Amino acid sequence: MNKLNVGLIGFGTVGTGVVRLLQENSTLIRKKTGLKIHLKKVMDRDITAPRDVKIDPQILTTNVDDVVLNPEIDVVIELIGGCEAAKDYILSALKNKKHVVTANKALLAEYGEDILKTASENNVQFRYEGSVGAGVPIINTLKEGLVANNIRLIFGIINGTTNYILTKMSEERREFGEALQEAKRKGFAEADPRLDIEGIDAVHKLAILCTLAFGTKVDVKDIYKEGISSLTLQDIEHAKEFGYAIKLLAIGKETDGEIEVRVHPTMIPLTHPLASVRYEYNAIYIQGDAVGEIMLYGKGAGQMPAASAIVSDIIELAMRVDRSLVRGGSLFWGGKRIKKMEEIESRYYLRFPIIDRPGIIGKIATILGDYQINITSVKASLVAGERDLGNVEILTHKAREKSVIAALNEINPLPIMRGKSVLIRIEDNSE
Amino acid sequence: MNKLNVGLIGFGTVGTGVVRLLQENSTLIRKKTGLKIHLKKVMDRDITAPRDVKIDPQILTTNVDDVVLNPEIDVVIELIGGCEAAKDYILSALKNKKHVVTANKALLAEYGEDILKTASENNVQFRYEGSVGAGVPIINTLKEGLVANNIRLIFGIINGTTNYILTKMSEERREFGEALQEAKRKGFAEADPRLDIEGIDAVHKLAILCTLAFGTKVDVKDIYKEGISSLTLQDIEHAKEFGYAIKLLAIGKETDGEIEVRVHPTMIPLTHPLASVRYEYNAIYIQGDAVGEIMLYGKGAGQMPAASAIVSDIIELAMRVDRSLVRGGSLFWGGKRIKKMEEIESRYYLRFPIIDRPGIIGKIATILGDYQINITSVKASLVAGERDLGNVEILTHKAREKSVIAALNEINPLPIMRGKSVLIRIEDNSE
Repeated sequence: MNKLNVGLIGFGTVGTGVVRLLQENSTLIRKKTGLKIHLKKVMDRDITAPRDVKIDPQILTTNVDDVVLNPEIDVVIELIGGCEAAKDYILSALKNKKHVVTANKALLAEYGEDILKTASENNVQFRYEGSVGAGVPIINTLKEGLVANNIRLIFGIINGTTNYILTKMSEERREFGEALQEAKRKGFAEADPRLDIEGIDAVHKLAILCTLAFGTKVDVKDIYKEGISSLTLQDIEHAKEFGYAIKLLAIGKETDGEIEVRVHPTMIPLTHPLASVRYEYNAIYIQGDAVGEIMLYGKGAGQMPAASAIVSDIIELAMRVDRSLVRGGSLFWGGKRIKKMEEIESRYYLRFPIIDRPGIIGKIATILGDYQINITSVKASLVAGERDLGNVEILTHKAREKSVIAALNEINPLPIMRGKSVLIRIEDNSE
Repeated sequence: MNKLNVGLIGFGTVGTGVVRLLQENSTLIRKKTGLKIHLKKVMDRDITAPRDVKIDPQILTTNVDDVVLNPEIDVVIELIGGCEAAKDYILSALKNKKHVVTANKALLAEYGEDILKTASENNVQFRYEGSVGAGVPIINTLKEGLVANNIRLIFGIINGTTNYILTKMSEERREFGEALQEAKRKGFAEADPRLDIEGIDAVHKLAILCTLAFGTKVDVKDIYKEGISSLTLQDIEHAKEFGYAIKLLAIGKETDGEIEVRVHPTMIPLTHPLASVRYEYNAIYIQGDAVGEIMLYGKGAGQMPAASAIVSDIIELAMRVDRSLVRGGSLFWGGKRIKKMEEIESRYYLRFPIIDRPGIIGKIATILGDYQINITSVKASLVAGERDLGNVEILTHKAREKSVIAALNEINPLPIMRGKSVLIRIEDNSE
């Protein structure tokens, strides 16, 4: 039997892409693998709206049972998005002994464990390569290519909207609001962009990556989150002067046998491979104990990149239908404790908007010293055209987040300050 | 059965790395996959030299038959290097129904087809992730992650030695010879570095990548090759002035239903993701019709990165021991014609070292025009401190290699020339 019957739930943008890819590249796929993928049913609430592909109207249905209960279907592709209905459909398909492929990151971050357990109990496969990085094969790289490695570190630029905005700010000297408007015009940001710019989308994806990388159930609520909406052009330019780029990084890191998981604007050296990831591109940088540093780069979203991942999952599951040799592996093989944000250590860039008076640097440095925060460099400057308004910028050695927050809480109310201090964490592999 | 018995042929640097990784991360691998990998026999001509790992002397042997004919062994890892003996051992293992894992790129480029045919006839698997890019999962990405894509383009920095030398030249303004000496001192270049700097190593790897990407048997002798030893610091600095970096690129490209395969110094825009791949790092940039652009980056060599790939291959083959569903796929599904070098089209950077006289640019431009070579920019400059020695630099639109060579052959003997012209091909996705 060299044929797989596939049912699709959700005939939207990505669903249409999957149908197109299965049509356009079916000969290629058959030549490469010997496998014929037959699209048996396509379910959507709306099956009359025009789509960009030709499809036999006979296979369209509005009844999900025509897919998940269909005895002729081997594999169900879930692409409706959202959590509750999607979860019900997937569990029902798995219980009916169908393999399932999805790209639904919110669902995975929320119900991944239940779904994987149900798949295992029913001896079927559940694959989700498209959920992070679209066509970039990051999930399979973590699960397979790096399987023999202890993963020490993941740095991900895993949200294209925010990276587009930060690139516009950095390369074209735009302010945040302006860059956001441009991202909307170009279709890189939704009308309501909060999911992206507040870091929520990145948090969902980081939960999936870290669960795999560290073998530890990482929940969305375990992840510290800070978006990019308060970043200014000034922050980006100051960072550049010190030799850094600012990226919204999703960070998963093992330290002291525990893990830290966080999404926030981060300064990385301009020579770091992630610093040159521009516009809507995504990249995930990983350190493993055997492989060293590797990075995967590509478009993290889009109709056909996502379809590429979904079809590769269908083919992969066919390749390993009988996993006779390998059973008993566990998803949560790591069982690490997740650190609280206040427990982490990092290097910091701190900017203090000040009213220029003698002794200010001494005052700020003394308070930082009281909290055991060591300074590596200080720069003081006046705001152009103002007689006594200035900035003090400080780079620190590695310090405790808790101490830094406490020091800033002490400095912020001082009369020398003309606004709240700015804190940006630095990742550069140094102490 | 959750156990695989493995036999190793070749207990050198990478072999030692595999033994160490199987020892150090065996618990991790068992937890992740449920699989126990048992090292049953290790064969080498020399089993008395001290190695960096502890190993039961009982499993060491100098007789290869203890591995390839051993009825208890499921998987043979070949790491002796070289072609003839390695080929014999691998074929013998496959015929004895053992799966085989190797990282031997010269062997694959030479005998890959025979070996894959023998594996298929004996219903066992042959895997070779470590042969290109060490721990960077490029082979599996081409075979699996991008399986649903028509691959249009591969640009690879797949030789760390040459990239190290070019980075030193570019960032520290060293001449080639000086940078090569430094690469030798740092252990990034062999005492006899010809395999690397002449592009031979890159050719072997490109043959493997292109065979997979285009489904076409690409032989080492099909690949045009030019090394980096004639590149000067001046070339690199001139390129930089025009906004380009020079990299030794391994290029596989489909144009007009045919493919072109070549390894040569190449100018790429400084904003291209490959331009920021520095020192000994490798990166492979791919364009697929669905996925768009993706890039994989990491250390392309080294004991533990290579071991990471080999152990992942062992685990992967266990995952798909019974390929009951998928049979009949073909390695050479593409069957493309391979273009001759003179048939390719490219953009070109041309530098003409001249004796400065009026009318020289007109003369050169006229000859180029006679050969249908369109110019996009011209720059003339004098050599510092010389009254009448200069350079004319020209960037062209896309032109035929054949025409450019013919034009240079006409220009080179002219009395205005004080040396041979320099030709560097440009890849920047423009016409």
